[in-house]
Amino acid sequence: MKNAVFYHAGCPVCVSAEDMVVKAVDKSQYNLEVVHFAQSPDRIAGAESAGVKSVPALVLDNEVFHINFGASMADVKGS
Amino acid sequence: MKNAVFYHAGCPVCVSAEDMVVKAVDKSQYNLEVVHFAQSPDRIAGAESAGVKSVPALVLDNEVFHINFGASMADVKGS
Repeated sequence: MKNAVFYHAGCPVCVSAEDMVVKAVDKSQYNLEVVHFAQSPDRIAGAESAGVKSVPALVLDNEVFHINFGASMADVKGS
Repeated sequence: MKNAVFYHAGCPVCVSAEDMVVKAVDKSQYNLEVVHFAQSPDRIAGAESAGVKSVPALVLDNEVFHINFGASMADVKGS
């Protein structure tokens, strides 16, 4: 199984993207984890190291995909 | 089956996103179609009507997700 991590911050754009990712990602291939930064602020540093610049973002096997734009990581850290 | 259409224009950002989408989308749920605007310029108008503003973009059940940023639709039409 490969790892997929969806990072978000609860914004409306994030929630819509989360719906899409949770529905569309092939769970027979990927362990999908959803990380909400407001609930897991300890995950912010790791996400930034992985290359996450804004939310919502999906990291698949260490490759980062920014999906639409909800908030920058600076906004996430400031909130 | 639901419809998923991935629109791109052959740019490097598009190719990387295409890899991700083709690998990760659950094909047991979605009919996935990949549209390359350079090969199918007749699909540009429909994509714009669906809300595609830049490529690469994934349209799932009429909802548009812009994944990273490769080129605007203005660039696509100008190329």
